[in-house]
Amino acid sequence: MEHFAERNIIAAIARQQARTAADLVRGIGDDCAVVRKAGGLVDLWTTDALVEGVHFDLAWHPPELLGRKAASVNISDIGAMGGRPRFALLALGLPAACPKEFLDKMVAGFLDVLAEHDMVLVGGDTVYAGERLLLSITVCGEMAEKQVCYRSAARPGDLVWVSGCLGNAACGLELCRQGWQGQEEYALLCRAHLDPQPQVRLGRMLAESGLIHAMMDISDGLATDLAHICQGSGVGAEIMAEEVPLAGELQKAAAALQLSTMQLALQGGEDYQLVFTSPAQNSGPLRNLSQEAGVDIACVGRIVAGAQVMLRQDGEWRDISFQGYEHRF
Amino acid sequence: MEHFAERNIIAAIARQQARTAADLVRGIGDDCAVVRKAGGLVDLWTTDALVEGVHFDLAWHPPELLGRKAASVNISDIGAMGGRPRFALLALGLPAACPKEFLDKMVAGFLDVLAEHDMVLVGGDTVYAGERLLLSITVCGEMAEKQVCYRSAARPGDLVWVSGCLGNAACGLELCRQGWQGQEEYALLCRAHLDPQPQVRLGRMLAESGLIHAMMDISDGLATDLAHICQGSGVGAEIMAEEVPLAGELQKAAAALQLSTMQLALQGGEDYQLVFTSPAQNSGPLRNLSQEAGVDIACVGRIVAGAQVMLRQDGEWRDISFQGYEHRF
Repeated sequence: MEHFAERNIIAAIARQQARTAADLVRGIGDDCAVVRKAGGLVDLWTTDALVEGVHFDLAWHPPELLGRKAASVNISDIGAMGGRPRFALLALGLPAACPKEFLDKMVAGFLDVLAEHDMVLVGGDTVYAGERLLLSITVCGEMAEKQVCYRSAARPGDLVWVSGCLGNAACGLELCRQGWQGQEEYALLCRAHLDPQPQVRLGRMLAESGLIHAMMDISDGLATDLAHICQGSGVGAEIMAEEVPLAGELQKAAAALQLSTMQLALQGGEDYQLVFTSPAQNSGPLRNLSQEAGVDIACVGRIVAGAQVMLRQDGEWRDISFQGYEHRF
Repeated sequence: MEHFAERNIIAAIARQQARTAADLVRGIGDDCAVVRKAGGLVDLWTTDALVEGVHFDLAWHPPELLGRKAASVNISDIGAMGGRPRFALLALGLPAACPKEFLDKMVAGFLDVLAEHDMVLVGGDTVYAGERLLLSITVCGEMAEKQVCYRSAARPGDLVWVSGCLGNAACGLELCRQGWQGQEEYALLCRAHLDPQPQVRLGRMLAESGLIHAMMDISDGLATDLAHICQGSGVGAEIMAEEVPLAGELQKAAAALQLSTMQLALQGGEDYQLVFTSPAQNSGPLRNLSQEAGVDIACVGRIVAGAQVMLRQDGEWRDISFQGYEHRF
C-alpha cells in the first residue's frame, strides 16, 4: 500500500484532469478557484470539510462556536484572495445521536457569521453520517478580476507580512485539551481556536490598494503556508524569528505549558491570519492601511531567489518549509 | 430529545435566515439555488454528500463507479432545473485505511463523468475522516433565467411525465445486497444503482422547449419527489399505477426477489430520472422531443387541486405523499 500526504491528493487529482474552460481564470491550486464573469468581475469558489475528532472536539467546542468556525474558515479563503464572500452551501453529516438543541445552536452560530459578512445560505444537504459530525461547506465570493491576489505572485525582493499574532489558535487548542478553557487569562487564546476571525475586511482593503503581490490565509501555519506561496511563485523566503508577532498571553501560556512559542507560531496553524508579500517601497502605505483597518500587521521577512522557507533564529538558519502536522494515509 | 426528519432540517435552517440578496432568484428549496448574472443568465448551485455505509457500500460498489455516481447525482440536480453543468468542487473525507489504488480509481471515475459533461473540477479539500469514506460535492451550472424549471411551477390540469423506467436502481441495490451483481440478466438493474445516468440532455431540451412547467429529478422516489412538486406548487397529483414505466428486467427480478414492483418504482429512489409537468396540449410536441432526445418518456398522471399525491391502483385510491425511506434523527 502506497502512502500519501493529505495536501498532495487534490493537486494529484488536478493533474489527472486535462480539461479547462475559457472563463476559468484559476482552477485548483490557490485558496479559491477564480471564474470570470461580466463587468470585469470574477467569482471565487472554495470548499472545506470539518470532521469531528479530526478538526474539532465536541468535548470543548460549544455548538454555537463550532458553527461559527465552520463558516469562518471557509470565508477566510475568500478573504485570502481579497474577495467579498456572498453565498454559502452547507452539507451536514449528522451522527446517530445528534440532539436537536445541539443542531439548532450550531446552525445559529453558522448563520450568525454569514449575517456578519452579509452572506446568504443558498443550498444544503443533510445526511446521516454514522459516528462523526461532519460539516462540508462551499463558499462563493466576488471581486474585480484585476485585484485578485494569488499565491503565485510573490517576487524576490518583496517583504513578507502577516496580520495579527501567530500561534494563538494552536496554543488555545492545547489549553482546551488540557481543560484550561474556563480560565480568564487564557480566554483570548481559547477563543482563537474556538472562534477564529477571518481577516476579510483587511484582505479586501489590501487587494483594492494594489500595494501587495501574493496573499493567502494562514490555516496550516506560516511554515507551510508561506511554502505554498514560495512553491506557487517559484521563490524562496527568509523569516526572522524575532519579528514573528506573538501575543503576550501566548508567551505566558506557552511558558506554563512548556511549549515553544516559535513552534506554535510557525507550525501550529488555524490562526486564519493573512500572509502577504509587498515591494519594500510600499511599507509606509501598508502601515497606514493597517491602521485604517484596525488590524496590526508585521513584517517578518522577505522573498528571495530559491525554493525554501528559511528561518533565522538565534543566528542560525534552518529550512522550515512545509513543517507542521499533516495527516498521511 | 426531539426527533426530526432529514428532509426537514435544511428547510428549517433556511427559515432561520431572514437574509437574501438582490441577485438571488431562488435559495434553498429547489434542486439548485439560482443566482442571476449578466446577459439573462443564471448560475445554478447544488451540493450533495455521500457517506459510506449510508449511501453506498464498498462491498459491492467498485471505486470507478462510486466516483462516477458521486458526480452524477450532483449533476442530476443541474439537469433537473434544465441547466448545463459547468464546474465541480470535491471535498473528500478518507478513512484511515484508504489504498492509493482505490482512491485513484474513484477519482478517475469522478473525472470521467465530469469530462462526459464537459465540466471542470475547480476546487477540493481532502481530510482524514475516521471510519467512513465521504464525498461531498458542489456543482455549478448555467442557463437562461427565463428557462429555469422550478418545482413550484406545476398547475392543476398539467399532465405528469417521467423519463425512463422507475424502480431499477432500488431493485439493483437489493440485487447487489443479495450478491446477484455478476448475473448477466441483472446487469441493467445493478448498473442503475451503481452508475446512474443523469438526464441532463433531456432536461436541457425540455427547459429550452418551453413545453413544461415544473421539473425535478427523482432521487427519493416518485412518491416523495412528486410530493415536493405538489408542496412547492400548492397542488395535488393523481398517479395511475398502470402507467408507471417498468423495465421488463425489473418485473422479472422483482418476482424472483418477491418484491413489489410498484413499491420499488414509487418509493425506491435513486433512479435520477426526471419528473415534469406539462399542459395536456403539449403532449404531441413532448413525444417528438423525447424521440429526438432518444429518451423514453411516459405520462403517469395529472396535477389537480389539492395537496396530496394520490395513487390509483386496482381501482383503489391511496395517498402516497412522501412515502419512502428517510433517516430520522
